[in-house]
Amino acid sequence: MKIQKEQISDYNKNGLESHNESFDFLANKLTKEGHDVTSIVSKLADFQVAIPSWALGAGGTRFGRFSFYGEPSSLEQKIEDVGVLHALTQTAGAVSLHIPWDVPSDYNAIKELANGLDIKFDAVNSNTFQDQKNAKESYKYGSLSNTSEAVRQQAIQHNLDVINIGNKLGSKALTVWLSDGSCFPGQNNFQTAFQNTQDSLKDIYKGVPDDWKLLIEYKPYEPNFYSTVIQDWGASLMLANECGEKAFTLVDLGHHLPNSNIEQIVSILQLKGKLGGFHFNDSKYGDDDLTVGSIKPYALFLIFNELVYGMENNPQNPDLAWMIDASHNVKDPLEDLIQSLEAIQEAYAKALLIDQNALKAAQSNNDVVKCQEILQGAYRTDVRPLLEKARLNRGGVLSPINAYRALDIRGGLIKERGKNTIATGL
Amino acid sequence: MKIQKEQISDYNKNGLESHNESFDFLANKLTKEGHDVTSIVSKLADFQVAIPSWALGAGGTRFGRFSFYGEPSSLEQKIEDVGVLHALTQTAGAVSLHIPWDVPSDYNAIKELANGLDIKFDAVNSNTFQDQKNAKESYKYGSLSNTSEAVRQQAIQHNLDVINIGNKLGSKALTVWLSDGSCFPGQNNFQTAFQNTQDSLKDIYKGVPDDWKLLIEYKPYEPNFYSTVIQDWGASLMLANECGEKAFTLVDLGHHLPNSNIEQIVSILQLKGKLGGFHFNDSKYGDDDLTVGSIKPYALFLIFNELVYGMENNPQNPDLAWMIDASHNVKDPLEDLIQSLEAIQEAYAKALLIDQNALKAAQSNNDVVKCQEILQGAYRTDVRPLLEKARLNRGGVLSPINAYRALDIRGGLIKERGKNTIATGL
Amino acid sequence: MKIQKEQISDYNKNGLESHNESFDFLANKLTKEGHDVTSIVSKLADFQVAIPSWALGAGGTRFGRFSFYGEPSSLEQKIEDVGVLHALTQTAGAVSLHIPWDVPSDYNAIKELANGLDIKFDAVNSNTFQDQKNAKESYKYGSLSNTSEAVRQQAIQHNLDVINIGNKLGSKALTVWLSDGSCFPGQNNFQTAFQNTQDSLKDIYKGVPDDWKLLIEYKPYEPNFYSTVIQDWGASLMLANECGEKAFTLVDLGHHLPNSNIEQIVSILQLKGKLGGFHFNDSKYGDDDLTVGSIKPYALFLIFNELVYGMENNPQNPDLAWMIDASHNVKDPLEDLIQSLEAIQEAYAKALLIDQNALKAAQSNNDVVKCQEILQGAYRTDVRPLLEKARLNRGGVLSPINAYRALDIRGGLIKERGKNTIATGL
Amino acid sequence: MKIQKEQISDYNKNGLESHNESFDFLANKLTKEGHDVTSIVSKLADFQVAIPSWALGAGGTRFGRFSFYGEPSSLEQKIEDVGVLHALTQTAGAVSLHIPWDVPSDYNAIKELANGLDIKFDAVNSNTFQDQKNAKESYKYGSLSNTSEAVRQQAIQHNLDVINIGNKLGSKALTVWLSDGSCFPGQNNFQTAFQNTQDSLKDIYKGVPDDWKLLIEYKPYEPNFYSTVIQDWGASLMLANECGEKAFTLVDLGHHLPNSNIEQIVSILQLKGKLGGFHFNDSKYGDDDLTVGSIKPYALFLIFNELVYGMENNPQNPDLAWMIDASHNVKDPLEDLIQSLEAIQEAYAKALLIDQNALKAAQSNNDVVKCQEILQGAYRTDVRPLLEKARLNRGGVLSPINAYRALDIRGGLIKERGKNTIATGL
Repeated sequence: MKIQKEQISDYNKNGLESHNESFDFLANKLTKEGHDVTSIVSKLADFQVAIPSWALGAGGTRFGRFSFYGEPSSLEQKIEDVGVLHALTQTAGAVSLHIPWDVPSDYNAIKELANGLDIKFDAVNSNTFQDQKNAKESYKYGSLSNTSEAVRQQAIQHNLDVINIGNKLGSKALTVWLSDGSCFPGQNNFQTAFQNTQDSLKDIYKGVPDDWKLLIEYKPYEPNFYSTVIQDWGASLMLANECGEKAFTLVDLGHHLPNSNIEQIVSILQLKGKLGGFHFNDSKYGDDDLTVGSIKPYALFLIFNELVYGMENNPQNPDLAWMIDASHNVKDPLEDLIQSLEAIQEAYAKALLIDQNALKAAQSNNDVVKCQEILQGAYRTDVRPLLEKARLNRGGVLSPINAYRALDIRGGLIKERGKNTIATGL
Repeated sequence: MKIQKEQISDYNKNGLESHNESFDFLANKLTKEGHDVTSIVSKLADFQVAIPSWALGAGGTRFGRFSFYGEPSSLEQKIEDVGVLHALTQTAGAVSLHIPWDVPSDYNAIKELANGLDIKFDAVNSNTFQDQKNAKESYKYGSLSNTSEAVRQQAIQHNLDVINIGNKLGSKALTVWLSDGSCFPGQNNFQTAFQNTQDSLKDIYKGVPDDWKLLIEYKPYEPNFYSTVIQDWGASLMLANECGEKAFTLVDLGHHLPNSNIEQIVSILQLKGKLGGFHFNDSKYGDDDLTVGSIKPYALFLIFNELVYGMENNPQNPDLAWMIDASHNVKDPLEDLIQSLEAIQEAYAKALLIDQNALKAAQSNNDVVKCQEILQGAYRTDVRPLLEKARLNRGGVLSPINAYRALDIRGGLIKERGKNTIATGL
Repeated sequence: MKIQKEQISDYNKNGLESHNESFDFLANKLTKEGHDVTSIVSKLADFQVAIPSWALGAGGTRFGRFSFYGEPSSLEQKIEDVGVLHALTQTAGAVSLHIPWDVPSDYNAIKELANGLDIKFDAVNSNTFQDQKNAKESYKYGSLSNTSEAVRQQAIQHNLDVINIGNKLGSKALTVWLSDGSCFPGQNNFQTAFQNTQDSLKDIYKGVPDDWKLLIEYKPYEPNFYSTVIQDWGASLMLANECGEKAFTLVDLGHHLPNSNIEQIVSILQLKGKLGGFHFNDSKYGDDDLTVGSIKPYALFLIFNELVYGMENNPQNPDLAWMIDASHNVKDPLEDLIQSLEAIQEAYAKALLIDQNALKAAQSNNDVVKCQEILQGAYRTDVRPLLEKARLNRGGVLSPINAYRALDIRGGLIKERGKNTIATGL
Repeated sequence: MKIQKEQISDYNKNGLESHNESFDFLANKLTKEGHDVTSIVSKLADFQVAIPSWALGAGGTRFGRFSFYGEPSSLEQKIEDVGVLHALTQTAGAVSLHIPWDVPSDYNAIKELANGLDIKFDAVNSNTFQDQKNAKESYKYGSLSNTSEAVRQQAIQHNLDVINIGNKLGSKALTVWLSDGSCFPGQNNFQTAFQNTQDSLKDIYKGVPDDWKLLIEYKPYEPNFYSTVIQDWGASLMLANECGEKAFTLVDLGHHLPNSNIEQIVSILQLKGKLGGFHFNDSKYGDDDLTVGSIKPYALFLIFNELVYGMENNPQNPDLAWMIDASHNVKDPLEDLIQSLEAIQEAYAKALLIDQNALKAAQSNNDVVKCQEILQGAYRTDVRPLLEKARLNRGGVLSPINAYRALDIRGGLIKERGKNTIATGL
């Protein structure tokens, strides 16, 4: 399935007049207030978020999984799905592969397919939290932290293999998420587990190409329920510092204890030049992996406020790897991803409307009321016309969700793939 | 200090043209979408929130308090402050007194003062969490739940006295918040404490006039740090049911464990006809008593979605007592309250924009994506022009915060009252 | 596999002398302090906890599952496993079946098998959180709360079928745990979902035999991550009250928000005569389903303090259904259950050592320090000799874990069943 | 008030026989299991914990404070109170002063007094979270992080003054706890606040004597309720690393988000040689500052497991500064502290009973069940006889709480000081 340009322009016809009115009214207002609307729209258009290959089918919980019809059953179909998302939203121009679920059989064909859909290969992800068929060693009690050297070596080698695969596709980063940890007090020696992890990461780091990044994820719990070796940003940063300048901390929004101030973590990591990437999702209780912006959109905006600040003020920090990492238990996966992409763009647009100079002045004066007025003034603005404009400028649709339904894309996929395909993944 | 009508109309002059443009554009758009804008504006104008008498001075924490200049030092001055808020915002048409901090010396004079400022007397609040000078018994180990009958009797009598005072002013509700509980396992017998509280509340209930409500607040912890007698809505509801049909549960947004789904609590209480009142504030960690909408504005919107639904669909539930219950540790108390009032109106306006029929249809079809689109469509709308219109229609100002500053109201209060007054309260 | 009496008496020989010394020393000390040691040991011996049929194989998470060798692959083998547990610990004299995983093909044979192992059939559990093969309707969007009447009817009928099956086995309770809820704001109408659930439960209640109980479980989240229809004890109690006097609330230790005071919930439910059952496990973050007592043993003791108090002072509350509900992701399931059973007995024994009269007196005097001394005095006592004695008196082993290993029970099971069996369950 | 040796030996007479029996029985059992009981008792006797000068009077909350009779009203009386604690428990041989509350007028006299009671001066604490009378600058909006250089300078100078005072008394560490942070999003620029704090701490560090430590505390919230500059161990460690080798992280048990794994933090900091000190207390919800071990004694034991491991295996980490930091809202402060000291000794004793070699072996074999058996075997042991022995060996009492009451120490203090004294502090 591939969406044609004509389908998009046809679809857009009906909404253009209304869009133009709304956009003009807003642009006029923002311009009066001193904003450079063209620049904002251009930044929105340039902002691209990777789609993980495992998020194109239905997700589940330990209590079960309800399949969705027309799921992609091959890497090719996954990339086609990302192509659909990108054609509509013009903001999903990358895919993030998970190995061993997505090892290409024909690299050239896959690259050509992606290229034709304007999709890049972003960070590749290793998997040492599940045992693979025919694997010699088991990760039941950990991978890079395991007390057994043989297990650690297998996990290290797997990561080097993943780099290799990514290299052939044009990826420039390896994301390491470890489920390593313990379910019970006493199960692990914390120091040994940390030291083993550090040593293993250093071994992997030796295989990281010079123009690559090593992104180290942290998470406080799940699937281990007492301790996690890389439990928080402090632990991840420690490991990144030990590895070297190509190693960075990766923040996943759902990987925090209740009430964490994530925007501050993001900010301080940028100050230190060590924020490498970002996994978007939303949550109310734990790592719920819900649609971005569906639960706490203001927190997302506050995080983007820090990201925008960092992108403008922290040259010591590299460009970030952006990815959605959500699970689609009750929604059509593609619709879910469209809503996530929309929420990310919205938060970014609102953050771009913050008057940083006025904010700085108010902060210097300890004018707390004014600081809040500035943030909320930006947040309360209805930025949807800006998002529409950014999409239009790149050839996307005015309203991706509506277009997805109007074009009956799921119906087309079911026709193509049938009802009973299952996407590899969680 | 009293704000004159001319000050308001003078202040509004500059902004009117811009307001009219924005309002017309929005009203036009909303009307096309099927909304009755006049009705929405009228509902906003009718929505009045009580200001608690203890929130007009600076608040503090156990680590200290930083005073604010020009605080009100008498009940009269507190009511004048509410008058200022109401004159500007036209949404603060009530005051909620705290006894014994606010016992009037001349009831007629106080009523006349309030009347002249268009301020009503909302729920009166008792205080059995602190010892008063010359009190015979101490509440150190509880009040209505105390193992000593003498203490319980003193606390019951105090509540009856508070009803008496409220009655003379035109109040129609008594709010009971208990700090009763325990700091250590074993300190309290849970069953005895609950039974004592139930019996005490029933005694108070006997003194509740027929056209009054008894509002029973709950809170999981603080100032007790192990258990609280009325720890959650379930306990409060149990007690309200035991008392009778004039007794209701009162929800304070900050009185919940981490990650609570408050909107669901609100909804189920309305279904059962037992939601009596609402204390607004915001928080990130505990009962932080921050400005309404400053941390989780989307959660506030979701709560208003339930409240709007209940007001339209639950005739079994009475009108609610609305109150702000925040603490002003770093902001000018009046500015803080203005921001809270604005956030409440904003959430209410957005909730009024939800298309309840479309939502119901999407829910019936399990169209989860559509449900979210409907809610977020309303939430993403910039409703500030509607709020301005509602204020204008009642004689208020376009922008209360800006007017407050332009009119240098704090400066005037300091001139009148000096720098070192301290408002009674926490 | 069945453990023979001789194996047990042989195993016990070596430890008897040491046990006698420890027991005599402790019994002597406790007797001096006024305790009736014989009565305490007898209460421990009488305390029986049901083993759920789904907890005899390895558990997993959404990230995967690591199988364990020698898992039971039939209902018969599950009951044999419970028989092993009971033979060793003498405190696991019941099994709790899950339908449709455990529908017997030959009821008489199953009853005979269980009887021969001294195993009773405790509460039966229905499953409306997964779709069964050939089921007409799907529970993807809820079961008893579903907006579709056909789905609700299917779920009601399933529960009636489960009662039927339980009846044939001698069960006297139906446990209903619903995963119903929503993943996103707006997905559900809270009031409709609650009302539907209430109506459905009432329909099921009509089919509950007179000497049965209906146990209604609550849980704040998972597998739904925004709302749960029966989110807490307040909602469960409301539904139990609506159903009638055979309906009760069931408390699962892991089903609470962070920092909940569970012992108080237990206590108040007993006061109201509405605590029906208890699911034991432990957790640090969410519903982690870890070994009982492995994370917060003091909290477990405090809960048992309330249970002991209730069993002695609340005739209005019925006998409780006790069950372990844990998941065994990294331990041998049988060893894990043995550790859980031991932790339960330990907490119960310590709670029985609390001097209730002295505690009551200290509470009356608000002698908080003394209250704590009394509780911690009991808790600090090493009660292991009492547990050994209780097991010995019933024909069990001194140390179940050591005996399990010494008798190489897992080795025997693997010989019998092979390495690749998989137990039905989660 | 000073306790005489004869009072202690007289008090101990009655309990000696019973103690000897219990101790001999336990010692015999532990010796058989391979423990060196003499060494354990000696370690317990050597373990000394500082008492903070502000914890000798009643504590309170923002809702009020209930005074306690006979509170110390001068530094001399505070030290006398610590002397009482130490005479009874023999484990409180140090005091930690808070400046400006405890500036001595006569240094020699104070040192002599402390010396006569066998009390050392442990870490000194600065206060930049409250404004002092006549202070030029206010800390309302922060101290070391303030946007105003004048405020930062005042705060730096205060810390240097505190070092000076401590130096004269023999202290060897400065503890810095900052309340700096923000109550609202946007109020602070996180990067500026962090950078200012880092620079300020470096300036203070220059004044830290060579044989001193700078201990940097962290806390996620309160009294600021949106962000805290030093929010967690990661931020504290970053700052300690920037300062240099005399700077360390200080862990306060109450300063963590819900569900934090504190024992792991402690362990990793020791691995890196950067754990400097420890503040003991307990809590259920936030920084509740309850009696040590009153809520989560098993967590305390797990932390001591790490501390014992670190003291034996991490020569890179210095000796730790131990202090109790609790608030006494409903208990007699001295009794509360006695219970805390007892809980600390208990946790330490149990941790010393863990067979580290067996644990290491079980960890290497991934024998999770065995790991738990080892930990819980130690934890379940009733170690009270060991604590008694350690106290006896140093000249303390068998049971400090009972002795405190038997000697009517509070009665004596009230006679001396009257009922209405108030201790400086929170």
